[in-house]
Amino acid sequence: MTKILIINGANLNLLGKREPEIYGNVSFEKYFHFLQKEFPEVQLACFQSNSEGAIINKIQEADGHFDGIALNAGAYAHTSIAIADAIGAIQTPVIEVHISNIFAREAYRRHSFLSERCQGVICGFGMASYRLAIEFFANH
Amino acid sequence: MTKILIINGANLNLLGKREPEIYGNVSFEKYFHFLQKEFPEVQLACFQSNSEGAIINKIQEADGHFDGIALNAGAYAHTSIAIADAIGAIQTPVIEVHISNIFAREAYRRHSFLSERCQGVICGFGMASYRLAIEFFANH
Amino acid sequence: MTKILIINGANLNLLGKREPEIYGNVSFEKYFHFLQKEFPEVQLACFQSNSEGAIINKIQEADGHFDGIALNAGAYAHTSIAIADAIGAIQTPVIEVHISNIFAREAYRRHSFLSERCQGVICGFGMASYRLAIEFFANH
Amino acid sequence: MTKILIINGANLNLLGKREPEIYGNVSFEKYFHFLQKEFPEVQLACFQSNSEGAIINKIQEADGHFDGIALNAGAYAHTSIAIADAIGAIQTPVIEVHISNIFAREAYRRHSFLSERCQGVICGFGMASYRLAIEFFANH
Amino acid sequence: MTKILIINGANLNLLGKREPEIYGNVSFEKYFHFLQKEFPEVQLACFQSNSEGAIINKIQEADGHFDGIALNAGAYAHTSIAIADAIGAIQTPVIEVHISNIFAREAYRRHSFLSERCQGVICGFGMASYRLAIEFFANH
Amino acid sequence: MTKILIINGANLNLLGKREPEIYGNVSFEKYFHFLQKEFPEVQLACFQSNSEGAIINKIQEADGHFDGIALNAGAYAHTSIAIADAIGAIQTPVIEVHISNIFAREAYRRHSFLSERCQGVICGFGMASYRLAIEFFANH
Amino acid sequence: MTKILIINGANLNLLGKREPEIYGNVSFEKYFHFLQKEFPEVQLACFQSNSEGAIINKIQEADGHFDGIALNAGAYAHTSIAIADAIGAIQTPVIEVHISNIFAREAYRRHSFLSERCQGVICGFGMASYRLAIEFFANH
Amino acid sequence: MTKILIINGANLNLLGKREPEIYGNVSFEKYFHFLQKEFPEVQLACFQSNSEGAIINKIQEADGHFDGIALNAGAYAHTSIAIADAIGAIQTPVIEVHISNIFAREAYRRHSFLSERCQGVICGFGMASYRLAIEFFANH
Amino acid sequence: MTKILIINGANLNLLGKREPEIYGNVSFEKYFHFLQKEFPEVQLACFQSNSEGAIINKIQEADGHFDGIALNAGAYAHTSIAIADAIGAIQTPVIEVHISNIFAREAYRRHSFLSERCQGVICGFGMASYRLAIEFFANH
Amino acid sequence: MTKILIINGANLNLLGKREPEIYGNVSFEKYFHFLQKEFPEVQLACFQSNSEGAIINKIQEADGHFDGIALNAGAYAHTSIAIADAIGAIQTPVIEVHISNIFAREAYRRHSFLSERCQGVICGFGMASYRLAIEFFANH
Amino acid sequence: MTKILIINGANLNLLGKREPEIYGNVSFEKYFHFLQKEFPEVQLACFQSNSEGAIINKIQEADGHFDGIALNAGAYAHTSIAIADAIGAIQTPVIEVHISNIFAREAYRRHSFLSERCQGVICGFGMASYRLAIEFFANH
Amino acid sequence: MTKILIINGANLNLLGKREPEIYGNVSFEKYFHFLQKEFPEVQLACFQSNSEGAIINKIQEADGHFDGIALNAGAYAHTSIAIADAIGAIQTPVIEVHISNIFAREAYRRHSFLSERCQGVICGFGMASYRLAIEFFANH
Repeated sequence: MTKILIINGANLNLLGKREPEIYGNVSFEKYFHFLQKEFPEVQLACFQSNSEGAIINKIQEADGHFDGIALNAGAYAHTSIAIADAIGAIQTPVIEVHISNIFAREAYRRHSFLSERCQGVICGFGMASYRLAIEFFANH
Repeated sequence: MTKILIINGANLNLLGKREPEIYGNVSFEKYFHFLQKEFPEVQLACFQSNSEGAIINKIQEADGHFDGIALNAGAYAHTSIAIADAIGAIQTPVIEVHISNIFAREAYRRHSFLSERCQGVICGFGMASYRLAIEFFANH
Repeated sequence: MTKILIINGANLNLLGKREPEIYGNVSFEKYFHFLQKEFPEVQLACFQSNSEGAIINKIQEADGHFDGIALNAGAYAHTSIAIADAIGAIQTPVIEVHISNIFAREAYRRHSFLSERCQGVICGFGMASYRLAIEFFANH
Repeated sequence: MTKILIINGANLNLLGKREPEIYGNVSFEKYFHFLQKEFPEVQLACFQSNSEGAIINKIQEADGHFDGIALNAGAYAHTSIAIADAIGAIQTPVIEVHISNIFAREAYRRHSFLSERCQGVICGFGMASYRLAIEFFANH
Repeated sequence: MTKILIINGANLNLLGKREPEIYGNVSFEKYFHFLQKEFPEVQLACFQSNSEGAIINKIQEADGHFDGIALNAGAYAHTSIAIADAIGAIQTPVIEVHISNIFAREAYRRHSFLSERCQGVICGFGMASYRLAIEFFANH
Repeated sequence: MTKILIINGANLNLLGKREPEIYGNVSFEKYFHFLQKEFPEVQLACFQSNSEGAIINKIQEADGHFDGIALNAGAYAHTSIAIADAIGAIQTPVIEVHISNIFAREAYRRHSFLSERCQGVICGFGMASYRLAIEFFANH
Repeated sequence: MTKILIINGANLNLLGKREPEIYGNVSFEKYFHFLQKEFPEVQLACFQSNSEGAIINKIQEADGHFDGIALNAGAYAHTSIAIADAIGAIQTPVIEVHISNIFAREAYRRHSFLSERCQGVICGFGMASYRLAIEFFANH
Repeated sequence: MTKILIINGANLNLLGKREPEIYGNVSFEKYFHFLQKEFPEVQLACFQSNSEGAIINKIQEADGHFDGIALNAGAYAHTSIAIADAIGAIQTPVIEVHISNIFAREAYRRHSFLSERCQGVICGFGMASYRLAIEFFANH
Repeated sequence: MTKILIINGANLNLLGKREPEIYGNVSFEKYFHFLQKEFPEVQLACFQSNSEGAIINKIQEADGHFDGIALNAGAYAHTSIAIADAIGAIQTPVIEVHISNIFAREAYRRHSFLSERCQGVICGFGMASYRLAIEFFANH
Repeated sequence: MTKILIINGANLNLLGKREPEIYGNVSFEKYFHFLQKEFPEVQLACFQSNSEGAIINKIQEADGHFDGIALNAGAYAHTSIAIADAIGAIQTPVIEVHISNIFAREAYRRHSFLSERCQGVICGFGMASYRLAIEFFANH
Repeated sequence: MTKILIINGANLNLLGKREPEIYGNVSFEKYFHFLQKEFPEVQLACFQSNSEGAIINKIQEADGHFDGIALNAGAYAHTSIAIADAIGAIQTPVIEVHISNIFAREAYRRHSFLSERCQGVICGFGMASYRLAIEFFANH
Repeated sequence: MTKILIINGANLNLLGKREPEIYGNVSFEKYFHFLQKEFPEVQLACFQSNSEGAIINKIQEADGHFDGIALNAGAYAHTSIAIADAIGAIQTPVIEVHISNIFAREAYRRHSFLSERCQGVICGFGMASYRLAIEFFANH
């Protein structure tokens, strides 16, 4: 059974409440249940933290215990070389996920330190960005 | 029935032959047949050109005749404001697709003029990048 | 009789349909008829293409057959050194024309490779930008 | 009767004397008389100052008393955010005018703080740049 | 009795009329009377000019005659090293004041030559920015 | 009764001990008592952490429980998009506060990611920067 | 027998007519005949187009049918990543050729996207740049 | 007896496992024992955390209890002004240490915010970088 | 008899009072008398203004009435293209003078728009910078 | 008889020994003999130095005694304005030569101060770069 | 017996005399004798030159005759690609040494062309920087 | 008796022969004799070298033996931090001299590493630049 970990970073605990015109008004909990139903053959886990260090810890711990990580680091994508290094340090493949289209927003969101260390990038599809990432892990 | 157009830009007619360590060794024709089988409920069409103008023409013509466009403009993604304008000028949603992870390659491939005009971006999953784009259109 | 060629570049075949809040909702055909009535003493011709190469060809061919060219290259103004070179290579004077005020839009529209090779620049007056260019050629 | 104010900025009192290879050898006074004859249906006024503050004062005072301003701020176009703010603060539309083609000169003349606040830009047509601006106001 | 001079720069004579969505719709005269009532123990004076030179003159003259200057130089904050030098040349402490949050506007408003020569910066509180500056001078 | 939260970020637990020529030699505890006496009508709370994540958590928790936040994020102001996002995600208004004049120090301290998301900025007044922020919340 | 293809890009059909002070006044046709006589042991072919796409097509088609390509892409050298990719996608070695010394002209001509994908670069020798490229292919 | 604290930052808990071609295959624990044997006259302590805040806390706590700190902040060296401020806030001298030669890697690793606040920098000697730092503290 | 005009710009009326560690403690009046005695064969005049416009006016008026201008524009040297244009517009040669060594101060003082339009530059010699400029005019 | 001087700069005395994967494994001495045989009608001389000054001296001395100089300045091409000035100061034409394709290497090798002062540039052909340069001098 | 060469570059012959607040007041000769006593098992040699070319020559000559080079190139570290190339051309490992902490000085001293070609970098420890370099060579 | 050393750098041995439209057609020898006659009370010496190292040596040797140095380093002014360091390392004051107006030439000549270490800068006066430097030393 494929095991996939979703890691959500800074401020993503507010999904559904925060800036709904950008992030929509569905909470992550609700969407996570939807995902579990959609992918009954996949064992899904999720983790959220506003702390860069906690995200690094989780990435390190996940190594070897999951078949893939869908990582939406939030704003840390744009500032954290440390998370990028954690991705580079483990064997488990990581997909970078963003809910909004980061290329259509502020200039400082166009660059992610994580992208070059990840297998690929999926952004701009709302919550469905997570779904596509799982789709990929489930089929490859 | 959902109708989706795949547009391939510069040098993507060489898929399977060109730099296989980056682009793999499957021709697009073969993968297109695979996609047709995978998505029997979707009407798929594809178009390739090495000419920026021909791609703009195709995007304009597709407007209103397709439910979505999966656009892999190749190198034109990095240099063509004219294609970006064509995307912005039509109603049909466009997803930007790249086979390789453009963020892990030369610096001049990190920026795409198209991204901010597209619904979202999918890159780095090899041929499966196309599949995920179709997946999204088929389900939303 | 003064002979003037209007060349329209990328996506300008969509005038009247595309992003009307920026480009207005009059088609170029309609405005061209208006221009023909306004300037009965001028022989007007027009050409549109989404292809950079076709625009270069037209500029080269126009040399010696027209007294002036009003060139709205669209997005190619910002990316095409080749069109700039074509302007520099011919004797017929060229005026750069833009419908919108390119200086009040995205940063990448502030720079035009064509400007320094043209006689002058007229931008921001909607369709009337073309009219002013013809006005100039007709009177000088 | 349409009322238009021409504002000339730094060093434009020297027109006809200063660097004639760039600015021609006609004084502004002479050209102003020509304009008055050309546009008998327009009430033309003009103002020149080498002082940034005086130009701002004039722009503010003109608001509501003129139907349009043709502003050739000279070098202040490249350095004055304060004049740009004055343009943004009034209702009367302003056209940015330059005698020479500023895009074919020193790099620091390529950028104008005023452009994005003006209706449009006309440059490179010698004294006729003023004429085209008045033409536009007179017809729209 | 504490003596404080408020200096307003370019276009601030239009407060209450200009771009009310940014600057509000209260004239500075009205707010100045409010301030006089709020700070009966402070002797307040004010000065406005659209001229960089006049502002420099005023700053120089104020030296030794006031206990503090609240300076809202308007757009000159972003372009005037000469005003910054005037601040550096006098003994009287100066506070830089802005009505709007200059960091949430155009990129060219993020940098002020004055800031590093002033005691401190207060911006974004509407007219209350002046009040806080006076508050500081009155209490320290 | 107005409720205001003061959040202090990295290294601000050392106030009074650290680089006194820049930050003074009063501890924050002492100044906090002074503030409580100065603003008896305001209910003041304070929080300090050297952890970016803990600051984000606190900002999220404060939403709806305070009328305003005075945020001195210390060095995180210059590097944390995640804190900026937290500010943008809540309803409670935030004022950015700095003890020193960050514009008169190292170049990398001139830019704050937080400023554009805050109501306003107050910096350079030593401990009184906090006081002015509270002053504003108390009166508006 | 060595087979070499010369590809000329944008505006190079005007050689001998266009800006003779830069490009000389010999047409390419004439020089091509000279080259054929100079290199009787080499089978020479040539192709010119003002279209980026046509150049890409030609490069792709030439692969395997020629021993070398002398490519003078004209202005496309400075803007086309797509042509650079075509060079990288084929086996036939390509030499970048320029008639003028591109390093002694406008700043934007100093950079060529093609150079790093070509075997080498020859520029500044007038028409003889082509000759040296053929010389190299003929001898190695 | 000289007391020295080694602080390891982000991802350095993976030493010996992570990217061995860059960081070698010796765990830090093993090397720490080696160091203890090599420097019997020095009292060595060590601390590792993936959290920026925890590193700042540790630096603050170490002040006055150690004679020197050998700090390998990992990726935080390139992004953390907050850690740099902590170094500047304490009396205990700090040496910046890197295992790999950060100047021979990605461009974003060439700059460290910490360097200018540290006594000196030692990098590129593998695990021996720590040894040289202790060597320095032990002898000076 | 050689006639030379000294023009002093922003804040130079404070010479002798302002930042004496940079500008010395001699007033310009005193030094001017010294210069008059030193150069009895030269007719010296001087002018000071804090207004950019007034300096431009003076430069224009001086044309033809003086054999040379020694111009210390103060901070306007770094921001005024308009003064540079005035220099370029007249026949009288101008020498740029600075009291302090502007290259050993803030980065924004390293660039002067005036330098390229002046005959030469003399800076860093205190009041003697003026003397050397007059020396040059007197002897050439 | 045509007289040509080959000047080799920094580290080119190590040709054949240094980084053979870039520079090949033929010593310059050997290749020089080959060149002498290939061009019996040309009088060839060569000079090598690791000293920028010595190269300048040689260029100056060569003026008038040679018909052409083939200059491979090595790394000095990227840093020496002084050598560029020497080239500009003499009458003898100079060709810039590089063995490797400098555009396919480190970013700092893409720019040569020499190029704009030389007749032309030949790079990327291994030792044959010298040959092509001599070829050109011998035939023109 | 380990053989190590110390190479000192520009102005390092003045050690002990030049800017003692930066470089200390011990001459290199004195410190060299100290080093010889400290490392009796190492055969130490030293060389100083103010000439870039002479340093390159020495590095080339040292190859194969020494087990390591401690190179303090002085200011040449920041400007010399030629010395960097010499380091890359030899087999003997080189350590870059600086007496002062170059990261805490002028911006142009933060970048060294040599670092990426050396084994490692040691800077900021005064004369002890040399010692640490020798320490490393002696133990590895 | 005042003792002054003139140091001329790269290519200045060609004065009178090299690019006379920039540097004039008087040899330095001739001008030196003129200077000796003009300043009989000054003991003048001169030195020229095309070698950066030799210039550094000369600056070091001059320390204490001359009352001032007039240094025209030629192109080394723009590239040599090592010469700048030599100036900073000695007590004798140095004046930077340039014959041409370096600010009116290529962009890369606008910056001199030497300026901030020299007492002052004199440029643009032809040979008279030297004279003004001596004038200053003789009178102060």
